[in-house]
Amino acid sequence: MSDKSGLSFLDTTFRAIYPQDSAYRQQAEERLNQLTMPHWALGDLMDLAVALAGMTRSLAPPVARKKVVVMVGDHGVVAEGISHYPAEVTTQMVYNFIRGGAGINALARRAGAEVVVVDVGARDDFADQVRTKTVIAKKIGRGTANIAQGPAMSRTHAVMAVEAGIEVANSLSATTDVFATGEMGIGNTTPSTAIAAVLTGRSVAELTGRGTGIDDQRLRRKIEVIEKALAVNMPNAKDGLDVLAKVGGFEIGAIAGLIIGAAAKRKPVIVDGLITAAGAMIAVSLEPFVRDYLICAHQSAEPGHGALLESLRQKPLLKLNLRLGEGTGATLAMHLVDAAVAVLTEVATFTEAGVSSAG
Amino acid sequence: MSDKSGLSFLDTTFRAIYPQDSAYRQQAEERLNQLTMPHWALGDLMDLAVALAGMTRSLAPPVARKKVVVMVGDHGVVAEGISHYPAEVTTQMVYNFIRGGAGINALARRAGAEVVVVDVGARDDFADQVRTKTVIAKKIGRGTANIAQGPAMSRTHAVMAVEAGIEVANSLSATTDVFATGEMGIGNTTPSTAIAAVLTGRSVAELTGRGTGIDDQRLRRKIEVIEKALAVNMPNAKDGLDVLAKVGGFEIGAIAGLIIGAAAKRKPVIVDGLITAAGAMIAVSLEPFVRDYLICAHQSAEPGHGALLESLRQKPLLKLNLRLGEGTGATLAMHLVDAAVAVLTEVATFTEAGVSSAG
Repeated sequence: MSDKSGLSFLDTTFRAIYPQDSAYRQQAEERLNQLTMPHWALGDLMDLAVALAGMTRSLAPPVARKKVVVMVGDHGVVAEGISHYPAEVTTQMVYNFIRGGAGINALARRAGAEVVVVDVGARDDFADQVRTKTVIAKKIGRGTANIAQGPAMSRTHAVMAVEAGIEVANSLSATTDVFATGEMGIGNTTPSTAIAAVLTGRSVAELTGRGTGIDDQRLRRKIEVIEKALAVNMPNAKDGLDVLAKVGGFEIGAIAGLIIGAAAKRKPVIVDGLITAAGAMIAVSLEPFVRDYLICAHQSAEPGHGALLESLRQKPLLKLNLRLGEGTGATLAMHLVDAAVAVLTEVATFTEAGVSSAG
Repeated sequence: MSDKSGLSFLDTTFRAIYPQDSAYRQQAEERLNQLTMPHWALGDLMDLAVALAGMTRSLAPPVARKKVVVMVGDHGVVAEGISHYPAEVTTQMVYNFIRGGAGINALARRAGAEVVVVDVGARDDFADQVRTKTVIAKKIGRGTANIAQGPAMSRTHAVMAVEAGIEVANSLSATTDVFATGEMGIGNTTPSTAIAAVLTGRSVAELTGRGTGIDDQRLRRKIEVIEKALAVNMPNAKDGLDVLAKVGGFEIGAIAGLIIGAAAKRKPVIVDGLITAAGAMIAVSLEPFVRDYLICAHQSAEPGHGALLESLRQKPLLKLNLRLGEGTGATLAMHLVDAAVAVLTEVATFTEAGVSSAG
C-alpha cells in the first residue's frame, strides 16, 4: 500500500511518530514537585504521570476511554507439540471473549475498558461474528506455517499484518484515549520467544518458559523447536519485518501495528505479557520513537518477557506472576494510569492548600 | 474497659478473631482451577481471591464498600530534628484531607473508597471538624512525649489507642466491606522504625530510611535518635503494648486497633506503608490470627517496611517506590482486590464455556 506521495502506508505512519513532548513533560514535573506531599513521594506513579503528559501533550491527559485490542492468530508450529492446549482452543476462546466469560472480560469490565477482538490469522473464520461486528476481520491467513520447517509467513504478509494493526488503531483512535494490547493464539509463546532470542541476542534455553504450563519434557521440546526455527530461518536481527515473517505470527505483527498506530496518534499503549512485548519489540525495531508511547504493564513469569522489557528499556508497573495473556495484565495497569492522572490533576499544591513546605 | 464477663475489651475482641476459613479457601481454589485459562495463570491475583474467600467466608467476597481510615497523631520526637517538615504540617494536612486536596483523596476517589479521618493524638483539636463529623474524635493525647527521653505514652494510653482503633472498626463495620489503613503524623517514620527494630530484631542503621526525604546528616541524626529511644526505653519485644507505649505513637496504636477490629469482624484490611505495617506488626504481636486478614498493598522505599513485611510473612502486591503514606498505596491495591473478586466470580469454567482443557 502506498499513498500519493509514493510513501508506503508503513512509512507514512512512521513519519507521524514523534518523541514525547519535553515541554509538557517539564510542566507536569513542575506541577508534581509542588504537590502537598514529600518530593516525588508517589514514585513510579509520578513518572507515569510525566510520561502521559509527554505522550498526550496535555497536563490533564485524557485516559477515560480505554480499549484492549485482542489480536487473534493461529500457529503452524503447534504441530510440533509445543503447547499444553490443542489448537482449537484459539477459536473456543474467541467465543468465550465474545460471550464475556474470559479473564480479559472480567478484568476489562473492572477497568472500564472495552474488549475488541480482531481476527488476523485464526484457522477459523467467525463469519457470524464478523457480520454482527463482535469480531473485526483483518485476516491475513489461516494460521502461520510451521516455523520449525520454514518461514511463518511471507514478507508481504508480515507487512500486511503490521498494516492491519495500524488500521485497527486508526479506526478506533477517535473513540479511544488509551490502547491496551491483548492476544489469543495457542502456541504463541513459541514464536514470541524466538523473536526475543533474535532481538535480545540471548540464548533460547535462557528465554524459554512454560507458556500455558508445559512439563519438563515439553519444555525441552519447545527449546529444540525454537532453536530449529532459528537455524532453519536465519532471521535478520537488523530487520524487524524479516524477524516477524520468519519466526513471528500474524497476531504479533498486528500487535506491532497497533502499537505503531497508537504512537502515530499520540495515544498511550499498554503492553501486556510476553507476546505483546514481542510485538512491541518488532514495533520499536521498525521505528524506535514508538518506545515513547509504551506503558509496560507487568513482568510475567516467562523469562523471555523480562529480557524483552530490558531491551525495550521499560520498567514494568506490576509483578504479579501473571501468565495468562489476553491483555489481562494491561487492564490491571489501567488503574495505575487513571491513578497517575488523578495525582497530576486532582492533588493540591502547597500554596493552594496552605501547607508549609519542607524546612 | 471490661465487659460483664470480666474480660477486657481487647481480650473480648481477640476472642472473636479466627483464622481464615479453610473450607471456603478450598472451594475458591477449586473454582479457580476450572476457569478457562491455564492453571493459576493469574498468579498472585488468584492467591488473593482465595484469601478473600477465606477471610469473608464467601465465594463472592463482598468488597464494594471501601474505607481508608486515616489515623492522625503527633510526635514529641520531632523536637529532635528528625523530620524534613515542621510539626504543624500534621494539622495542615488534616485540613487538606477534609477539603479533598491530598494524594489520598485523589486516589481514594479513583478506587471508590471513602476517606475517614480520625484524630487519635494530634496536637490540635479540630473542634469545628469534629462537630461537623468530618473528623472523628478519639484523641488520647496531644502528641506523644519525646521517645528519645522516655516513653511515648503510658501503658494505659497505649491500650486506649488500640481500643480507639477497634471502636472505629466496630462503628464503621456495618457500612464497610474492606478496610484500608492510612495515617498522618509528622515524624512518624521514626517511631515506626523503632518498632520495626524491636520486633524484627534488626539493627536501626539497617532499617532507617529517609522518610519524607531527609538528607544524609538528618538520616544520621534519625538513626542516633532511634538508637537512643531504644536504649532509654528498653521496650520488651515480647509485649506489643510495651513496645507501642515506649517507642510508638497514638496513631500507630489506633492502626493496630483498626486492624484487630477488622479481623474480628472478618473484614479484609489493607496495610499501606511503613507506619501502618508497624501498626500491623503490633496487632499481630497481640493476636497472631490477625495476620489472616491482612492484605499488604505495597513495599515502599523505606528499608524498615521490607523488614516488617518479611516478619509479617506477607508478600506486597505492588512495588512502585511509594513513600507518601496517608493510605495511598492501600487505595491502589483496592483495584487488585476488586480484580481478584472479578476473577473468582465472573470468569467462566471450561465446562461452562465449552473450551477444551489441557491435553
